[in-house]
Amino acid sequence: MAKKIRLGILGGGGDSLIGVLHRVASQINDNYEIVGAVFNPNFEENIAFAEEIDVPTNRIYKDFDTLVEEELKLPKEERIQVCSVLTPNFLHFPMVKKLLENGFHVICEKPMTTTYEEAKILRAAQEKSGTVFALTHTYTGYPMVRQMREMIRAGAIGKVHKVDASYYQGWINSIIHDKAKRSTVWRLDPKKAGISSCIADIGVHAFNMVEYTTGLRIKSILADFNYLYDDNQMDVDGTVLVRMDKHIKGLIRSSQVATGEENGLSIAVYGEKGGLRWEQENPNYLYVLSDTEPLQVYKPGHAYNSKLSLGGTKLPPGHPEGIFDSMANIYLGVARAIRGEVYNDGEFPTMLDGVRGMDFIERTVESHKNGNVWVDLD
Amino acid sequence: MAKKIRLGILGGGGDSLIGVLHRVASQINDNYEIVGAVFNPNFEENIAFAEEIDVPTNRIYKDFDTLVEEELKLPKEERIQVCSVLTPNFLHFPMVKKLLENGFHVICEKPMTTTYEEAKILRAAQEKSGTVFALTHTYTGYPMVRQMREMIRAGAIGKVHKVDASYYQGWINSIIHDKAKRSTVWRLDPKKAGISSCIADIGVHAFNMVEYTTGLRIKSILADFNYLYDDNQMDVDGTVLVRMDKHIKGLIRSSQVATGEENGLSIAVYGEKGGLRWEQENPNYLYVLSDTEPLQVYKPGHAYNSKLSLGGTKLPPGHPEGIFDSMANIYLGVARAIRGEVYNDGEFPTMLDGVRGMDFIERTVESHKNGNVWVDLD
Amino acid sequence: MAKKIRLGILGGGGDSLIGVLHRVASQINDNYEIVGAVFNPNFEENIAFAEEIDVPTNRIYKDFDTLVEEELKLPKEERIQVCSVLTPNFLHFPMVKKLLENGFHVICEKPMTTTYEEAKILRAAQEKSGTVFALTHTYTGYPMVRQMREMIRAGAIGKVHKVDASYYQGWINSIIHDKAKRSTVWRLDPKKAGISSCIADIGVHAFNMVEYTTGLRIKSILADFNYLYDDNQMDVDGTVLVRMDKHIKGLIRSSQVATGEENGLSIAVYGEKGGLRWEQENPNYLYVLSDTEPLQVYKPGHAYNSKLSLGGTKLPPGHPEGIFDSMANIYLGVARAIRGEVYNDGEFPTMLDGVRGMDFIERTVESHKNGNVWVDLD
Amino acid sequence: MAKKIRLGILGGGGDSLIGVLHRVASQINDNYEIVGAVFNPNFEENIAFAEEIDVPTNRIYKDFDTLVEEELKLPKEERIQVCSVLTPNFLHFPMVKKLLENGFHVICEKPMTTTYEEAKILRAAQEKSGTVFALTHTYTGYPMVRQMREMIRAGAIGKVHKVDASYYQGWINSIIHDKAKRSTVWRLDPKKAGISSCIADIGVHAFNMVEYTTGLRIKSILADFNYLYDDNQMDVDGTVLVRMDKHIKGLIRSSQVATGEENGLSIAVYGEKGGLRWEQENPNYLYVLSDTEPLQVYKPGHAYNSKLSLGGTKLPPGHPEGIFDSMANIYLGVARAIRGEVYNDGEFPTMLDGVRGMDFIERTVESHKNGNVWVDLD
Repeated sequence: MAKKIRLGILGGGGDSLIGVLHRVASQINDNYEIVGAVFNPNFEENIAFAEEIDVPTNRIYKDFDTLVEEELKLPKEERIQVCSVLTPNFLHFPMVKKLLENGFHVICEKPMTTTYEEAKILRAAQEKSGTVFALTHTYTGYPMVRQMREMIRAGAIGKVHKVDASYYQGWINSIIHDKAKRSTVWRLDPKKAGISSCIADIGVHAFNMVEYTTGLRIKSILADFNYLYDDNQMDVDGTVLVRMDKHIKGLIRSSQVATGEENGLSIAVYGEKGGLRWEQENPNYLYVLSDTEPLQVYKPGHAYNSKLSLGGTKLPPGHPEGIFDSMANIYLGVARAIRGEVYNDGEFPTMLDGVRGMDFIERTVESHKNGNVWVDLD
Repeated sequence: MAKKIRLGILGGGGDSLIGVLHRVASQINDNYEIVGAVFNPNFEENIAFAEEIDVPTNRIYKDFDTLVEEELKLPKEERIQVCSVLTPNFLHFPMVKKLLENGFHVICEKPMTTTYEEAKILRAAQEKSGTVFALTHTYTGYPMVRQMREMIRAGAIGKVHKVDASYYQGWINSIIHDKAKRSTVWRLDPKKAGISSCIADIGVHAFNMVEYTTGLRIKSILADFNYLYDDNQMDVDGTVLVRMDKHIKGLIRSSQVATGEENGLSIAVYGEKGGLRWEQENPNYLYVLSDTEPLQVYKPGHAYNSKLSLGGTKLPPGHPEGIFDSMANIYLGVARAIRGEVYNDGEFPTMLDGVRGMDFIERTVESHKNGNVWVDLD
Repeated sequence: MAKKIRLGILGGGGDSLIGVLHRVASQINDNYEIVGAVFNPNFEENIAFAEEIDVPTNRIYKDFDTLVEEELKLPKEERIQVCSVLTPNFLHFPMVKKLLENGFHVICEKPMTTTYEEAKILRAAQEKSGTVFALTHTYTGYPMVRQMREMIRAGAIGKVHKVDASYYQGWINSIIHDKAKRSTVWRLDPKKAGISSCIADIGVHAFNMVEYTTGLRIKSILADFNYLYDDNQMDVDGTVLVRMDKHIKGLIRSSQVATGEENGLSIAVYGEKGGLRWEQENPNYLYVLSDTEPLQVYKPGHAYNSKLSLGGTKLPPGHPEGIFDSMANIYLGVARAIRGEVYNDGEFPTMLDGVRGMDFIERTVESHKNGNVWVDLD
Repeated sequence: MAKKIRLGILGGGGDSLIGVLHRVASQINDNYEIVGAVFNPNFEENIAFAEEIDVPTNRIYKDFDTLVEEELKLPKEERIQVCSVLTPNFLHFPMVKKLLENGFHVICEKPMTTTYEEAKILRAAQEKSGTVFALTHTYTGYPMVRQMREMIRAGAIGKVHKVDASYYQGWINSIIHDKAKRSTVWRLDPKKAGISSCIADIGVHAFNMVEYTTGLRIKSILADFNYLYDDNQMDVDGTVLVRMDKHIKGLIRSSQVATGEENGLSIAVYGEKGGLRWEQENPNYLYVLSDTEPLQVYKPGHAYNSKLSLGGTKLPPGHPEGIFDSMANIYLGVARAIRGEVYNDGEFPTMLDGVRGMDFIERTVESHKNGNVWVDLD
């Protein structure tokens, strides 16, 4: 018998979309129950929200430190096992650090931290604690992204020689062209958002997809950013040339001013024998390209897919899966890890993904600032 | 504060896909908790399954009658409020009837009953009891199907003159071409599946979509079925000509031998001023056609959508929604109805949809059997 | 050395689109030169048009009879070898008949005649004369339609059991909803257009596609038409159920009021082992479906295509081919036939296609008029 | 009356695909007749080819110089008016130069020359001669590319801030992975192909599309190339960052090892108010994006298109147009220019496009060779 895993939630109250996404995903595979939370810094709103979503209020705490303190007093078999950290970015580091140090497993929203330095500290903390840590690069939960990874690993396209990943959105147009708005939104304020807007928010997802699907490490990068108004110089658009090895190159394209694009994450990987293409807006299709054979379209749930892909499909072919299913697959992987089950590499993004993401963001900004020069990643 | 609604589940244990779909959907909007169930006719397996998915076992009953009996002994504020009926088709009628007569709300899988006669009896039972009844024609939960309905209602395409709906699948090929298999599968055995395979299983979904989106009633039909082997004459393919009014015609196409089609539900409605097209395999796109203006593609979550459509979207534009979200929207509508909230017509399929579906199935078989003649629906 | 074939043209002057299409197609493969014509019933306009498109005016004749008479006086090696008949429908029969009887080859626009009776007379005339006759069911010239035919013939999808063809357009909306217009347009006047508008204009194309791609004969049909206003009862929409053999059924859908559809010819054929789908608006894709393998997309010009398909491709893969290329392939096939070269069955639509088309149109109207009953084709 | 324009052809004999493309395109709009040629350096093959395609052999010359010499002896009203130059790249410069200096109009295949220096010399020659010169950047002949240009010019997307163009092909895989092949193919031999393979062959098309559609000039570039084997260091893949103005940036992506991509030319332009996307493999669709309105799909031939776009459409909406139609539109524009008609800017690529293309190629190589630094274009 598999008892449900006791889940705590930090942040994600009120109208938070990320809160909905995590709650739904945690419930989809019958693995979690929410037993404690600090949904909101305001205690009254916190309680009201718990009541609204029908979570028992006896373990709704006034703040994060109280949550840790009180939970540690509970017997281990009642205590929160894993915490989802959905708070503003700058709180990720202190919260995750304390959670790991106190033996809690952690599911953390992206970006993992605000600096690469912090990321490395968290990594050390996790290694010491031996707990499970997952970063919600949600897109790696899609069955066809997993299929892409497994096909490349199995040699379906031969040696990789070219990667092209992009994440294009247009949403910041509604802010950036208005002087008052662009000076007040947190995402465009370096004090609140850190050193980057576009690359840190979405470019890093494309970076993660490249490393996840190819199994290759990006070794060096050259970046060029764009901003539209001199009074706000945070990047709202950026292109990054990347090199994985001597003859393996690629690029990462990202934009928040690609007007009319909604959530345009895509990746194409080309190898000696074939190519693979995937787009988030039609996540159930994986295009398999060949110079000599007909184009193939792989879809989820078919026996021709890999075990890793099929593990992320709940229904028969032809039933479209969406973003909740993808996030649910991340939660499923974490549950399996917490329970000590054998699981495949690739079921959820790890601490290492978080560390590399922060390295990517900082080196990208460095490359741009120094005049579009090549910079090595660690 | 909105207390969670107490949900009972009949059927859907073990590997049942429909069980997964209903459980997930019930959880997505934080409205339901499962408090009682008969997942399985075998009591040991029933209990084991409850433990596996971590539902408390104290209200797992040995059979349906016991569930009703025991629940009625509980105080009203603890008792199951609504039951999801996921059992084999022939059990729908007796279970739903008893549930309605005892004041339970019901969410029932399709087909509602095995005969039109039974359907009319259920309708009378519901009218008497005044409870909420929903039939899970899941596809009407998609935001863009709802948008289609609202646009037609608002006159966006003018007077409708043509409807073309289809539901093409190929799955029965793996059975039908094997003599041993086709003689043993329940779906192809009239004693177990009723008078029809293809029309009753999927054609009726297309029928429901036509009436849901257009707001029109189909008045008469002419049907032609196909079967592939003389030793099994259940329909595996069928086309139905339909008439809604003097100059409003259309057709419903369905097949279980449309080889390679996975879940090909689609609908096109053409009117004096425009056309609308939707396909289930890309459920987030609604195509808006005009003779003189550029083709438009509507997507979920945008402010240009109707209130009914937006009520079924949980995340911002560009995040693909899947079948779980669609079913969750049906559950959300039911929750609102149970709580006595004001809700829009069209949030979930009603008893009337079920009654009309059974009428459609029986009249379709009648038309085919009588030599492809026109038959009126009630 | 291949001398160019001497082409005569009847009709197609002025702004005629069909004239452009035939002239371009005749030139694409360097096989034809226009040596004589009656572009226009008005002789002055006829001459002016010839000068405009730079055709020598010495063999521009005042009328059809003069053309035949004068050309027959010329030595055989100068005389028009083949005539393209692009005149109004009612003129096809007398012109083609006279041409065939005088030993000219003929390329005839669709519909071949206005009645099935006339069609049979032409067939007899051609059999007697032994000349080449092609009917421009243009769509059979597309490389991927040809590939579809060859794959079915080679058994790629096994025994066919279901066919679904459609031709949806919306253009007649601009006429039909205006009482004055719909009473004056020739297409809606039975005296000028014959017994049918929609089925005769476009439904017959879908019919031809079914027989061309499957290699099967449609044996009986049941039709239902629609018209929108009582004061004009010509069909503007119609569905035809078809039967090819005991367990092989299908349907042909056609509409001129499918609002916003431009030129929506499509065909799907499902067999025991696979399915094939093609749509005219993306003519370079052929979808190959399987219940167990990934969807495949065949494209023109690849070595994996059949010889018949490759014979209709002029450029390397990835260069989109359009309607001119398709019509040019028909002209190419005719040129090969005139030159007595060995050619594949399927390179151009023959007299038999025309005869069957007229049979289809008349039987379809008969079925509808008699109350949607089954009618056999010859 | 419009007399046909007298066309001469240099190169394009035998199986040459480019020869087919130009001949067909020249014939499509009834504007040209081929009166002279040097199809082939071997005179016998030259004559045989002329006979095969039925061009009179009296003005088939033994070589280019003879063609010029003999044609100049003819009276002006018989002489070749315009020559299509389809010879190997290194012959473009001397041929075009001599043609221009002798008063012939020229249609030249791409690349215009092998160096920027030569390109500037040609430009001076044309300015002196006052003749018409067109470079066949074929893709600018597509109706929807023209529509894109006109919409940007009319302000439909507001101020442009981002451009992303790509040209991905996979064809060189069949050569590059074979040591013997890659050392012998002309395209990979700098002595024959010039300083670049990928950028000069296809990247320059993407460059031209950017300047054509946006009306903006690329001011500086930073390039990174890839090659796969140390024994052949010609670029088979390359990415170019581009800057048009302070806040207007973009990128040009090109590859000959994008395995399975056929002819993947695409362009996306994002502006303050909207976005536009076009892809060559579906050339009849122009996607019009907005942050707030539904996606629109523009198609050729509709009244909502610009005059420039409609001028390139020959048939009604829904009839797919292909690459022949696109090239034919270039020829049409040239014919209008030769006849001195008023024509729109944008009907064919000019000498300036050729000059800028060569500048782009040389600066791109320079940027890559110097370590991926920014280089200004003239």
